[in-house]
This record gives sequence, C-alpha cells and structure tokens, in this order.
Amino acid sequence: MKRISLKHSVLQGNQKIAEQNRQIFNHYSITSINFMSSPGAGKTTFLESLLLNMNAPEKIGVIEGDIATTLDAERIAACGARVVQINTHGACHLNADMISKVLHHFNLSQLDYLFIENVGNLVCPIEFDLGESLRVTILSTTEGTDKVAKYPAAFQCSDAIILNKMDLLPYLNFDLNHFYSSVKNFNPYASIFEVSACKREGIAQWTKWLQTKRREKEQKD
Amino acid sequence: MKRISLKHSVLQGNQKIAEQNRQIFNHYSITSINFMSSPGAGKTTFLESLLLNMNAPEKIGVIEGDIATTLDAERIAACGARVVQINTHGACHLNADMISKVLHHFNLSQLDYLFIENVGNLVCPIEFDLGESLRVTILSTTEGTDKVAKYPAAFQCSDAIILNKMDLLPYLNFDLNHFYSSVKNFNPYASIFEVSACKREGIAQWTKWLQTKRREKEQKD
Repeated sequence: MKRISLKHSVLQGNQKIAEQNRQIFNHYSITSINFMSSPGAGKTTFLESLLLNMNAPEKIGVIEGDIATTLDAERIAACGARVVQINTHGACHLNADMISKVLHHFNLSQLDYLFIENVGNLVCPIEFDLGESLRVTILSTTEGTDKVAKYPAAFQCSDAIILNKMDLLPYLNFDLNHFYSSVKNFNPYASIFEVSACKREGIAQWTKWLQTKRREKEQKD
Repeated sequence: MKRISLKHSVLQGNQKIAEQNRQIFNHYSITSINFMSSPGAGKTTFLESLLLNMNAPEKIGVIEGDIATTLDAERIAACGARVVQINTHGACHLNADMISKVLHHFNLSQLDYLFIENVGNLVCPIEFDLGESLRVTILSTTEGTDKVAKYPAAFQCSDAIILNKMDLLPYLNFDLNHFYSSVKNFNPYASIFEVSACKREGIAQWTKWLQTKRREKEQKD
C-alpha cells in the first residue's frame, strides 16, 4: 500500500509540473512531441532525418534524454537544431521537472517545434506526462510483431506509431498485416507510418502529419 | 531524500529474498541465469535455440517475465522445457519475490538449470538481484554499437554478453571492433559471444561456456 501511494504522489507531483510545461508550450505556440521507444529502435536517426527534411532548423528545439553520454546530442547538433542533453544518471525515463529545468536553454519565442527524445525504454516513460502536445512511439521491424501486445501501454497512449527499419523487412520474419491489426486492436485512433530513418524514406509523410496536427491545434486555440 | 530511502528499502527487501532464492538454488545445485535485454533483442529466440541444443529438457526450467501475454511461455513450452509465465502487469522488471513465488511450480530436485527471461528493458532489471548464479545481457546488432556506452550498467554487471542477430550484420552500420573495445572498457571480465539465435549459430559455444561455469561452481562447493 505504501508503495502504491508513493507512486501516486510522485505521479501527481509530475502531473502538476507537466501542466505548467504545457501552459508554456501553449503560450509560445510550440508543438512538443515526446518520442518513446526501446533502445536502438532509431529515435535519434529518425530525428536526424526529420531535421534534414524540415525547413528552418532555428525553429526546432530538441531535448535528448539519456542515462549517460552526449552522443545523441552531438548527432542532433550536427543537423543545425538547438539541442539540450539531459543525462538521467541511471533513471529510466524523463519526467516533467527535468524538462521544466532545461527550457530556459531555448529561445522559446523562436520555436515552432520541440522534439523530446525520451530514454530508450518501452515501459517506464509512458506514465510520465512531460506536458507534450503529442506522443509518438517508434517500433523497429527488428523487434518483432509481438511487441505491440507485449508492451501495450506505449502503443495505447500514442498519437502516432512509427514503424522504423522498413529497409530490413526483406531479411526478417515480420508480419506487417499482424502488426497493423495488433495496433488497431490496442489503439484504433493512432496514425501509423512506415519509415526507414537511415534511408530517409517515409519522413515526408510523417512531417506532413505533424504539420497538419500543428495547424489543427492553432485553429482550435 | 524520502524517495531515495524508499528505493534503498525496496532494494534491501529484494536482496533478502534474493539471498533466500540463492540458497535454494545452491541446495538443489541449480545454475540459474538472469537474461536481460531491450525488447526484441532476441531473448526468447535465443532460449528456444538453447533448449533445442541442450540434452535432457526435463533438467531445464524456464521462467518467462513479461508485462502482458503468455506468448513467450507458449514458445518455450513447445521446446519441451517446464515453463512458468510471470505477468508483471505494468511493472518494468522482475524481482526476487516474483521468482520466489513461482519456484514451487518446478520439481527443483530434477533441475540442473533455471533460465529466467527478464522483462525487455535495458535499465530497470539491473538493480534487482533475483538470486541468480549468472547474469547475461543480450544486445542485438540492430540496436547499434553505442548502446554499451549509453546503457553501461547492464554490461557492467554481466558475466556474459551475447551479441545477437549476427545474420543481419551485412545490412547494418554496426562497428564490431568498436563494440568489443566498448564492452572491454566497461567490463573486461565478461565473456562475449556472437550469435544468430534464429539461425541457431553460435549457440554451442555459449552452451559450452555455461557448462564450464556450472562445473567450476560444483568444484568450488
């Protein structure tokens, strides 16, 4: 019981800061995206391709969440976007407070988009709202079709699901039809995109989706 | 401070039960192995290949740890080993108590080996001793060389590291030399094995290593 109530209190505290982050993002009309996946599913490579595909890198901020190293931030900085690395030093996910504490590193009034790359983990990040506008889960074909049913929460809470490493499909035993029906089963509302981040294929379609989502939000506000 | 002390207390409680599990394994001369990896690195496929490569499946027990589904347990049962599925219902790792509670499902006096497949997560399972004799981390080539430096704890605490999906190497930008030097940097004592679990390649060498470890332990006791 003690453990459950502490978890509840941690999540409640996180939610409060997440709402503050959300207000800041709304105030500056920033579309923020929380990218989640297993380690090695291709989040950073996807972001690299994305940055090279989008105009005006000065309007894009990136937060890199990693347990250790600044490897990912270095790769993103090379694409011309403003990037801040958060090292969690063992923690298995980002939380709203970590995001809140690095926002001053960005010129927020200049940003249209803030891409947040969470720690590689298909379980723990899901419970922690960062104040993001959209959640995106990346699954790579090499991980197998069964991962949707085995880690359902990540897929249930996502606005879009990106199936990455499509270039490796010919060498794998990956059932694309089963993947689609499985995702639809857990989350009929998520948009699904087939991508090969390293070959820069499928990026334009996703970018279009993102821009539409941003426009819809602006019209609503 | 409150959070840190609670974590300390949770880990202390876990350690106590882990030691009890270890005593049970020692009493019955069971070599138990805690397999850890990201989701989709190939733990279950490796275990399938392993079971098909080892004689006397009746001497092998398997515990499958998953957030949801019994998919993995069904695959393992088809290989002839006694298997118990633990569903963690959202929890991101196995703990010693979960193991302790399912041990009565096995005829322990009959077992030589107990393979424990942890939840797919390269972060959280590391802190939780299950009472195992050996720890093994599986990395797949598709996850990338940088994962050793980015998730160092898993590699530091392992007796053996299995590099799986070697069959996909020709299609990837994976630097094998960098992988070896990176592992040696974080853990000079770990044995490293190149494996293709789906092609059943490299399994015999690993099985030999396991049997040697078991013999060494028996001679020591």
